[in-house]
Amino acid sequence: MNLPDTGQKRIVIIGGGFAGISLAKNLKEVDLQVVLIDRHNYHTFQPLLYQVSTSGLEPDSIAYPLRKVLKELDNFYFRMASVQRIDPDGQTVFTDIGNLGYDYLVLATGTKTNFFGNQNIARYAMPMKTVPQALDIRSLMLQNFEKADDCLDPVERKALLNFCIVGAGPTGVELAGAFAELKNNVFPKDYRHLNVDEMEINLFEGGPRVLPPMSENASKRAAEFLKALGVRVHLNVIASDYDGERLTLKDGTTLNTKNFIWTAGVTGAAIEGFATHVLVERLNRYKVNRFNQVEGYDTVFAIGDIAYMETEDFPKGHPQVAQPAIQQGELLADNLGRMLQGKELKPFTYRDKGTMATIGRNKAVADIKKLKFAGFFAWFIWMFVHLMALVGFRNKVVVFFNWAYNYINYDKAARLIMRRFKPKA
Amino acid sequence: MNLPDTGQKRIVIIGGGFAGISLAKNLKEVDLQVVLIDRHNYHTFQPLLYQVSTSGLEPDSIAYPLRKVLKELDNFYFRMASVQRIDPDGQTVFTDIGNLGYDYLVLATGTKTNFFGNQNIARYAMPMKTVPQALDIRSLMLQNFEKADDCLDPVERKALLNFCIVGAGPTGVELAGAFAELKNNVFPKDYRHLNVDEMEINLFEGGPRVLPPMSENASKRAAEFLKALGVRVHLNVIASDYDGERLTLKDGTTLNTKNFIWTAGVTGAAIEGFATHVLVERLNRYKVNRFNQVEGYDTVFAIGDIAYMETEDFPKGHPQVAQPAIQQGELLADNLGRMLQGKELKPFTYRDKGTMATIGRNKAVADIKKLKFAGFFAWFIWMFVHLMALVGFRNKVVVFFNWAYNYINYDKAARLIMRRFKPKA
Repeated sequence: MNLPDTGQKRIVIIGGGFAGISLAKNLKEVDLQVVLIDRHNYHTFQPLLYQVSTSGLEPDSIAYPLRKVLKELDNFYFRMASVQRIDPDGQTVFTDIGNLGYDYLVLATGTKTNFFGNQNIARYAMPMKTVPQALDIRSLMLQNFEKADDCLDPVERKALLNFCIVGAGPTGVELAGAFAELKNNVFPKDYRHLNVDEMEINLFEGGPRVLPPMSENASKRAAEFLKALGVRVHLNVIASDYDGERLTLKDGTTLNTKNFIWTAGVTGAAIEGFATHVLVERLNRYKVNRFNQVEGYDTVFAIGDIAYMETEDFPKGHPQVAQPAIQQGELLADNLGRMLQGKELKPFTYRDKGTMATIGRNKAVADIKKLKFAGFFAWFIWMFVHLMALVGFRNKVVVFFNWAYNYINYDKAARLIMRRFKPKA
Repeated sequence: MNLPDTGQKRIVIIGGGFAGISLAKNLKEVDLQVVLIDRHNYHTFQPLLYQVSTSGLEPDSIAYPLRKVLKELDNFYFRMASVQRIDPDGQTVFTDIGNLGYDYLVLATGTKTNFFGNQNIARYAMPMKTVPQALDIRSLMLQNFEKADDCLDPVERKALLNFCIVGAGPTGVELAGAFAELKNNVFPKDYRHLNVDEMEINLFEGGPRVLPPMSENASKRAAEFLKALGVRVHLNVIASDYDGERLTLKDGTTLNTKNFIWTAGVTGAAIEGFATHVLVERLNRYKVNRFNQVEGYDTVFAIGDIAYMETEDFPKGHPQVAQPAIQQGELLADNLGRMLQGKELKPFTYRDKGTMATIGRNKAVADIKKLKFAGFFAWFIWMFVHLMALVGFRNKVVVFFNWAYNYINYDKAARLIMRRFKPKA
C-alpha cells in the first residue's frame, strides 16, 4: 500500500464497524496518521440487517460510506482491502492490495458467523452478517414465494414456504417476527391466489428460552409475542444437519425447508499472525487488558466484539454488542492521546445501557438497568434508540420514513429481487 | 406454468415496463384473466437508472414490486420468468418455468442495448438498462477511485480516473453530467489526498450534436452545460473497439480507460417464434397497425418500444420513450374491452408531451411542443415530471428527499460498493 509520509506515527485500524469508527472519529485531536482498512467501503448498521432481509428497509439506508464518516479528520486514509495476516514482530499488515507498516495497530474486526464446524450447514445455510447476505435472504424468500405461487405439488410448496431460523438470540427473534409480519400483513395481498397460511416460521433454540442473554421476563414476553404472531418456537432443539432441502434435528426429526437461516452464533474474526496464547481459542477473541492492549503488546489493541476483557463485573468478557465496541473505541482514542503525551492510561469500565429486541409492530422487550418492560413503550424506545444510533442524517430520515410508511400501511415495501440468489448445488 | 381456469379468456403480457403496467392497470374493468410475465419481480423506472449508477439514488427507490402495482386487479397473475420463444400457431409462450397458452398475447418487451455487432464492446463495455447493471457501474466507479487513491503510477491512475461514455442521447448526457457533479462536488471531499482534477469525463457521439432526438436549441444548450461542468464532448466520433483497457476510435486514436460505458443505442428485445416479415429487421421492432396488432395477427399485440407503428406524424415509428408506451398500453386496454364487446377499435394517435434531459444541478433542457427552453425552469419541470411519473408513493417520497438532501448538501450519498464488480478477464 502507498501511504504518504506525513511525519506522524501511523495507526492502522482494521475494521469499520462500531468499534473502528468510534475510535477513528475520536482521533481528530490526536497527532497520528490514521489508516482505516475494511473489506467494504461502508459501515454496516448490523442491528437493522434483519429488516433488509425482510423487505422493510432498503440496503442503502443502513450502510454509510466510511470515507464520509471520517471526512472531518485530517490525515485520515481509507483503504478497501482484505487483511490476510499480520506480522507483529515486523509491525506489518499484509492485505490483498499490498503491505503496510504500523506504529500502532487496532484490531476491530468483529465477529463472523459460527457454524460450529458443521460443514454442511456452513455450505447450505443462509448467514446474515453483511448487507449482501441480507439481500440474498430477501431474494431467496421472494424467489421461493414466486415458485410456490406456481407450484401444484403440496409437498414441494410446503418446503418452499417453510422458513427455519436457527438461534433465538436477538437476530433470530427479530427475523422470525419480521417474517411473521410479512405473512400476516403483506404476502396475502401480493399472493392472493396462494394460501399464505401455508407459510410456516420455525424458530429453533438450543437452550431453554428465547433471547438467552436477556432477562427471564424478556424471554417470556418475547416468546408470547412470537406465539401471537404465529411463529413456532422450538426450545432445547439442536439443528444437526442441512443439505439444502432437508433439515435434520439432533433427535432425528427431519423437516423439508428451502429457507434455512443460521443465526445460532458468532465467533471472533481473528487474523492470522499472533501467537495462539493471545487468543481465547474457544471464542476466537483477543485477550486484552483494561486498556484494550492485546496480551504481551504495548502498541497492539483490540476493541469491540473481537476483544476479550475480563473485569469484576464481566468475568467472562463483555457482551458482543454495539455499546462496548463504541465505548472502547472512545476510550482508546483518549488513551492514545495520553500515551503520546506520556500520561497514564485510563482503564475501561463498561456502562451498560441495556438490551432490547423488537419482535414486531408495537411489540418489543427491554432490559434497561433494573427496569424490565415489554410492549408498545419498549417498541417505541427501541425505534428511537436505533434511529439515533444510525450513522448519517440521510439514513435516519429514510429509515424513519420507511418505518412510518410501513407502520401506517401494514407494508414492507422493498420486496425486490435485485439479484437472484442461486442456491448451492 | 400452472394458472387456474377462471372461465375467462387469458391475456398474457410479456414485460412489466411502462407499456406492460400501463396496459395491465387499465384492464381492471375488462373480463380477462391477466397474466404478466417479467424476468424481474419489479418495474424499473429506467429514466432514473443513471442516478443509481452515480450514487444519487438507492436502487430500491426506482424499482417497484410488480405484484404491488396490480394488487387492485382481480384475476391478475404474475409470473417471474424468462420467455424463450413463442409459438403463434399453437398460441403458446415457452419460458424457463414452463409453457403457457394464451387467447391474447401482448409483446411489451422493450429494448436491449445495441452493440451493433461489436463483440469486444459487447464483452467489455458497461451497459445500463437494468438495476443490476446500474449498480455494477456504481461499484466499478467507486472501486476504480479506491484503486486510484493508492496508485503511484500516473499512467495507471489516469486510466482508472478516465470515464468514457459512448452515445450522447439523453442517457449518455445525463450520466456524463452526473459524473461531472461527482467530480466537482463529492469526490474532492472523499478523496482528499487524490488530485480529483485527474478525473476525466469523455462523452463520444457519432453524430454532429448531443441529444440528437431533441431540438437544435436543446443540443446547443446541453453542450454548453456539459462544457461548463467539465465534460469533454467529442462529436462525429465513433468508438470502434475496447479491450477492457484501451478504447480505439474509428480514426485510430486510442485512450486508456477502465470505465467504459455504452449508451450508444438500443434494439428491440424481440422474441423468437414469429415469421421474420413481422419484424423491422434493422430495428428488431414488431410491425403493428394503428390498433397495435402485430402484422397478420388479430390477437397478438405489440406496445411500447418494441412496437413499430407508422403514422402520418411519425412515418418512421414513434420515439422509444415512456410516453408512447404508456399511451399505447392505455389504448390497448380500452380496445380489448371493445373487442370483447364486438365494438369497433380506436386507432392510436400519439400525444407528444415533449422531451427533456437534465445535465446537472439547475441545468436541464426541454422541448415541449413549440417551447424550447433550458436552465433552472427546465430542470425544475424535469424533476416534477419524473417525480410524478415514479410508481408508488414511497418511492416518490424517498426520491424527493434524496434530491433535496443532495441539492442542499452538494452530495450524492449512496456511494456504496454493495457487491464488487469483477471486470471480465
